[in-house]
Amino acid sequence: MYRKSSYGSELDQLIQLLSKLPGLGPRSARRAALQLIKRKDSLMRPLSTALAEVAEHVNPCTSCGNLDTTDPCHICDNTKRDISTICVVEDVADLWALERAGNYSGLYHVIGGSLSALDGVGPDDLNIASLIERALAKAVLEVIIATNATVDGQTTAHYISDRLKDCDVTVTRLAHGVPVGGELDYLDDGTLTAALKSRRPF
Amino acid sequence: MYRKSSYGSELDQLIQLLSKLPGLGPRSARRAALQLIKRKDSLMRPLSTALAEVAEHVNPCTSCGNLDTTDPCHICDNTKRDISTICVVEDVADLWALERAGNYSGLYHVIGGSLSALDGVGPDDLNIASLIERALAKAVLEVIIATNATVDGQTTAHYISDRLKDCDVTVTRLAHGVPVGGELDYLDDGTLTAALKSRRPF
Repeated sequence: MYRKSSYGSELDQLIQLLSKLPGLGPRSARRAALQLIKRKDSLMRPLSTALAEVAEHVNPCTSCGNLDTTDPCHICDNTKRDISTICVVEDVADLWALERAGNYSGLYHVIGGSLSALDGVGPDDLNIASLIERALAKAVLEVIIATNATVDGQTTAHYISDRLKDCDVTVTRLAHGVPVGGELDYLDDGTLTAALKSRRPF
Repeated sequence: MYRKSSYGSELDQLIQLLSKLPGLGPRSARRAALQLIKRKDSLMRPLSTALAEVAEHVNPCTSCGNLDTTDPCHICDNTKRDISTICVVEDVADLWALERAGNYSGLYHVIGGSLSALDGVGPDDLNIASLIERALAKAVLEVIIATNATVDGQTTAHYISDRLKDCDVTVTRLAHGVPVGGELDYLDDGTLTAALKSRRPF
């Protein structure tokens, strides 16, 4: 749409790269580039350094798949955590979400996505084999499946629980129900039905 | 909200810097960071390099305020452009927008914002003195004021046209009217009134 010659080639390159970030389109990438130039010392140079450092030092943990500068990661390496429980999540973002909630003290296993016939993602594309291997260890007593509550996520959950049958572990999954702070009027039928079915004594 | 220790400090630093970009909040900054790590070689390292290069080489043109690797910029330096006309814009983004439209062949002058009593931006905070200086040159015949059609932008336009009274130039401004592709039903009264007032023979 715009002529390449409008900006210098360096700026053009920067804007093109920025527009590849999720959440930024061409217009917001241009705004971001201008903002960065206005704040060269407080934002642009530090961001450049931070990107290079993370690219250099942050890698997936070979045990659980979490991203960290150390391998094993600080969660696998933390002796205060409960090694009898493994929580299976689709992505590192989900692991972060659970860590922010701050109420889980076990270990994690990032499988790296969900099974999807449409996108051609099969069991071999996910880190499921390594999960089974970990679950076979005597110390592991429970595997919590915390995949997303989407169709693909639930398919993946069923597949994993099938594969875990031969391991001597309890397999559990997250509860469905009314989100804390949520209004019933805005909830879908499926969630309401699940919340009603799993009702608990007051 | 989230505990700092959740990610490594390098990742934390990167996410914090990303979330300062316009258009990215904490959540999308986390998503962007994960995306970057997934595409280290195709996105993360190139972005780091591009940021460093732009920080090093791109600076405002001392004549017009455009951002470029050369000074004067490629527009001021282009002998094919019409040096008798200067288009005054608030920001480099506005200059880019006019360049993308691709129908203006004169020079520019970026004043770097608009007058704003609320934000405490006075005439001395903008590059207006240098505009007057440029307008005094014999070669300059017309100054087009292309500040935004906001209250601040229009205040700035009036102030600039006042200051340009002593220069021997024609002062013009962009036309108001119906945007191309726009529907009358969705336009505000002010725009419709302006479009009606400035109607032209068919």
